[in-house]
Amino acid sequence: MPSNSDSTTLLRGAGIGRGLAVGPVMRMPAPLPEPETTPSTLTPADELGRASAALQATAADIRARGERAGGTAHDVLEAQAFMAEDPTLADDVEARVQGGLTAERAVFEAFASFRDLLVSMGGYMAERATDLNDVSQRVVANLRGVPAPGIPDPDFAFVLVASDLAPADTALLDLDKVLALVTSEGGPTSHTAILARDKAIVAVVGAAGALDLADGQTVIVDASTGSVTASPSADEVERAEATLAERKARPTAPTGAGRLADGTLIPLLANLGSADAAADAVAKGAEGVGLFRTEFLFLDSTSAPTVEAQQEQYTKLLAAFPGKKVVVRALDAGADKPLSFLNDSDEENPALGLRGLRALRANEQVLRDQLTALANAAAVTEADLWVMAPMVSTVEETRYFTALGRELGLNTLGVMVEVPSAALLADRILADADFASIGTNDLTQYTLAADRLLGSVAAFQDPWHPAVLRLVGEVGRAGQALGKPVGVCGEAAADPLLAVVLTGLGVTSLSMSPAALADVRAELALHTLERAQEFASLALAANSAFEARAAVLEATTAPSAS
Amino acid sequence: MPSNSDSTTLLRGAGIGRGLAVGPVMRMPAPLPEPETTPSTLTPADELGRASAALQATAADIRARGERAGGTAHDVLEAQAFMAEDPTLADDVEARVQGGLTAERAVFEAFASFRDLLVSMGGYMAERATDLNDVSQRVVANLRGVPAPGIPDPDFAFVLVASDLAPADTALLDLDKVLALVTSEGGPTSHTAILARDKAIVAVVGAAGALDLADGQTVIVDASTGSVTASPSADEVERAEATLAERKARPTAPTGAGRLADGTLIPLLANLGSADAAADAVAKGAEGVGLFRTEFLFLDSTSAPTVEAQQEQYTKLLAAFPGKKVVVRALDAGADKPLSFLNDSDEENPALGLRGLRALRANEQVLRDQLTALANAAAVTEADLWVMAPMVSTVEETRYFTALGRELGLNTLGVMVEVPSAALLADRILADADFASIGTNDLTQYTLAADRLLGSVAAFQDPWHPAVLRLVGEVGRAGQALGKPVGVCGEAAADPLLAVVLTGLGVTSLSMSPAALADVRAELALHTLERAQEFASLALAANSAFEARAAVLEATTAPSAS
Repeated sequence: MPSNSDSTTLLRGAGIGRGLAVGPVMRMPAPLPEPETTPSTLTPADELGRASAALQATAADIRARGERAGGTAHDVLEAQAFMAEDPTLADDVEARVQGGLTAERAVFEAFASFRDLLVSMGGYMAERATDLNDVSQRVVANLRGVPAPGIPDPDFAFVLVASDLAPADTALLDLDKVLALVTSEGGPTSHTAILARDKAIVAVVGAAGALDLADGQTVIVDASTGSVTASPSADEVERAEATLAERKARPTAPTGAGRLADGTLIPLLANLGSADAAADAVAKGAEGVGLFRTEFLFLDSTSAPTVEAQQEQYTKLLAAFPGKKVVVRALDAGADKPLSFLNDSDEENPALGLRGLRALRANEQVLRDQLTALANAAAVTEADLWVMAPMVSTVEETRYFTALGRELGLNTLGVMVEVPSAALLADRILADADFASIGTNDLTQYTLAADRLLGSVAAFQDPWHPAVLRLVGEVGRAGQALGKPVGVCGEAAADPLLAVVLTGLGVTSLSMSPAALADVRAELALHTLERAQEFASLALAANSAFEARAAVLEATTAPSAS
Repeated sequence: MPSNSDSTTLLRGAGIGRGLAVGPVMRMPAPLPEPETTPSTLTPADELGRASAALQATAADIRARGERAGGTAHDVLEAQAFMAEDPTLADDVEARVQGGLTAERAVFEAFASFRDLLVSMGGYMAERATDLNDVSQRVVANLRGVPAPGIPDPDFAFVLVASDLAPADTALLDLDKVLALVTSEGGPTSHTAILARDKAIVAVVGAAGALDLADGQTVIVDASTGSVTASPSADEVERAEATLAERKARPTAPTGAGRLADGTLIPLLANLGSADAAADAVAKGAEGVGLFRTEFLFLDSTSAPTVEAQQEQYTKLLAAFPGKKVVVRALDAGADKPLSFLNDSDEENPALGLRGLRALRANEQVLRDQLTALANAAAVTEADLWVMAPMVSTVEETRYFTALGRELGLNTLGVMVEVPSAALLADRILADADFASIGTNDLTQYTLAADRLLGSVAAFQDPWHPAVLRLVGEVGRAGQALGKPVGVCGEAAADPLLAVVLTGLGVTSLSMSPAALADVRAELALHTLERAQEFASLALAANSAFEARAAVLEATTAPSAS
């Protein structure tokens, strides 16, 4: 008797990168049921002992997972461990246990009430609510003596299907076993997507209907098209496996400068969040740094770090890239990364608020100190330091930033183009700035007026959208007319096929997570600049992101028109 | 001995409309000093009696002012009266009086604590904080037996200077005495600016340095240039008065269809928020309705009104415009006007959230009911009904809305262009839509990525910005190429000179507050389409909103290049 799962069906979502995978589905288990409100049959003291032990054991378990994972995941998990150890939460659990509840129910209610509080605080705090749910589930599982909800662990490789993944889960994915990730929620800039990209996991996120897939059902996951083919035909499986084999044969190690098939150089640079990551970027073939985020220097402070403290970090970074380009972005505080000493926490729409350069102008000493520290670091190292301002919207802001930077001894000053007005006036902005770097994540967010961190509008967050590509083209054209470099440092640069389209739009360098460099380098080498320009024209003429991607994909398999 | 106020100085801000005024400055009195914390010498019962009487008297006073003012101001003041009568606040005052404070101090502290709570709640509630401050000051003034802080009332006409105005003040401005408003805070979409525009008061807002003006100092306020000339020369005063006399001689009553000097028809339409306002709009010369906002039908509901209830209102509206165009906007919920049954209150950036058409699609029955009610109303009236969707970002959304509207029996279906992507893809969107209407307020907000309701980024909120005008030009060009009408219904249309520029960019109709119709009609009649196109080119070539406005202003006084 044929079931639904026997007929081939196609799901669509947002692909991360352009990996391909074939394998059986394993679904994330459903969350634990809500603990009963039946009064405890134990004494409050006994229940309290159970609760304390479970909280401690969970904190220790999460912390151990964090240590095994390292990197970004370590910090996320360390924060979760602190939640399990939070004394306010422990007091709340105790009060509920004293009221006669079981430890399970008391933990459940205390975490839920704390989560509601976080949600009501909004912003960064509200985004921690998911983490709190995850910790609560783990504590309750510990109390019940059942395994914590989490990644399935069968003895074969599988495609993991979930509504979305908690950071604790994503961090510990066994990359030898998890062939691909498919989620029904989230968009290309969700937490899951960013981690998937960072670890180069094949992923399609926001694929509606994914939760209807059955354990064991075979799927082909193609991130390049954002498609998930369920119960594919034998032919389809064979084609996918042939493509996989062909890709495996491609070199993934650095093979010199990034270039198109006709030799046009397209420097491939790394997005870095700390100087410590420099060596790994070089090993993965980065020709320099296209986006050095400086927020890490400021995040733990209630005031800005000193010039000396900053200079030490910048010197360390620049020393890792002698003779190479290093683009540092001035502090980009505000929106989803507010700083108490720079930003107003009461903004109704922080993404449209006093963020980036706007906040720095309102606190000019912070900006002056940072630029001074950068100039000092440049003076004692061999790197070619470029410095750019975040969230520039006008010509006047461009002039302000470049004049201040030159006054403080910097040579190469540019702007991030992430606001539509900056792209629309690129010809005038590049008359003052030495270079532009397009932040496609925010540019897409503003061009489509869709919060890039909000699940309900995730479908709009696609840098393949022809409106976004038109703006990229405006900047590229202005750069070429004025002989100024135009880079892209958003997630778009890490999508190999889109990277080719960007070069066709006049972009002269690409910066991305180091993990994405090899794939992008390989794809660029397959196409000439002329072909890239043809692809760009096709994408611009499309009606949607989906059509743009499909048109270019089709063209890559067709002979050149030229 | 010459004082500073004797030398001519020039302040710059955002002009509202293009009125001109000359007169002496009167400044808003400074707020009352904070009441002392010295313990009361009266009994708590006596202090409590004083406090209750003052709260009641203030509520009655505010309510009476609201009744005299009527309209929008009535609702705002009614809400303030409720604040003075709030039982939670009264309890808080009582507790503080029992603790030994004076009634003045207890009121001050109770209101301040309530205000902090509102601010911490964020969003709509936080915006009420200013109102609460105003009520607090009025109660304390009543207790002290001094006049409530408010508009000065000398026996001559004057230019009112303030940091910003509370709604209670703006509502009762004596238009025979207040020649103009100058504020140091706020932008073109601030509360003060919107009320000034509604009442056609000459105003320049956000003029830094305005608080340094002295009582009695003569100023020339020119909203068309956003300038305030302090202590002008005798020549300057004479020129300003001559211009005023010339303008007074112009007809302000309806004088037929809106048209440019060469006869090009530019229908002048009204923005309306309820059917009751239709008669006034017709009296002021509206040739139809360019934006009928339907939110008022939904605001008091926890669910959508029935088809029948909506149909009754739409029929009333359409019956007021037989044979004329009436453009109705489908429910635009979300962002600053959320509805509990449509919107998610937890969005981090509601302006970039599930708003407008996005929210309607997620609740399609609400949209179907509204479109059905509109089709029914159109069937029994003689107006030419056009219906448009708010917050459209993509071609796919356009197709969804126009298909649904046609299915439900509507003939003319269009889209609001307020998201940059919609402007950038206007050629494709207008292939499906019958018309476009540009909402310049939101379009400016998204193009500059600056919250239009946030004071700290108010300087970015200027529809003269060349980036915004470029997008308007994209829509205008697409409309002309496809023979589809393109209107503007944002505040930009109410700025007479900008209205001319918009026609030069291809805009074919303008919709505005009825109070602005006469000035716009008069200005359009002064320029040919060819001149308007020259002005548009000048504005597009400028580097900033300020330069764009200045370039066009200069050109209006220069002979035509043609």
